Amino acid sequence: MYGLIGKLTAQSGQRDALMQHLMEGVKTLRSLEGCHLYIVSAAKDDPDAIWITEVWENSEAHQASLANDAIRAVITAARPLIAAPPEGFEIVPVGGVGLPER
Amino acid sequence: MYGLIGKLTAQSGQRDALMQHLMEGVKTLRSLEGCHLYIVSAAKDDPDAIWITEVWENSEAHQASLANDAIRAVITAARPLIAAPPEGFEIVPVGGVGLPER
Repeated sequence: MYGLIGKLTAQSGQRDALMQHLMEGVKTLRSLEGCHLYIVSAAKDDPDAIWITEVWENSEAHQASLANDAIRAVITAARPLIAAPPEGFEIVPVGGVGLPER
Repeated sequence: MYGLIGKLTAQSGQRDALMQHLMEGVKTLRSLEGCHLYIVSAAKDDPDAIWITEVWENSEAHQASLANDAIRAVITAARPLIAAPPEGFEIVPVGGVGLPER
């Protein structure tokens, strides 16, 4: 498996709007092959920050999602609401509650 | 919902052993009320680091898990393998792939 833990910082006051765009993208992600998890969360310690945890079957599935037209439209719509380059950490998920047992 | 994104750093060379303890705890977490997600991942950029994403129905369910005997046993067994105090971020998950639609 392949994953990402990312932190996005919205323009001041735009976090809810940015999360709405991300949740719009989730509608597409639910139908994509290899997307196990894509969790959108508000940070409690920063009124502008969003945490995203993604788990994919492999990095190729993640890459393919970035070429999806609906996902590209979400990214284009969301970009003006983002204040800073995202901080992201690549991960190798080993399992847990919410992932299939292997 | 309530959640945590946490980073644990293992003693050098002990990451796999620490992850095994965490995955032992997952067996208990699967049966606990209110535990939606508990994902254990290896960091790609640090051979000793582990990322954990947790989503609970509420913070009370998370607190209750820490009083569970089997979870306490895992924490006790895992503690000597941890090199530094965990870094954690509290989150308010809003949804996504892998969480129920609300």
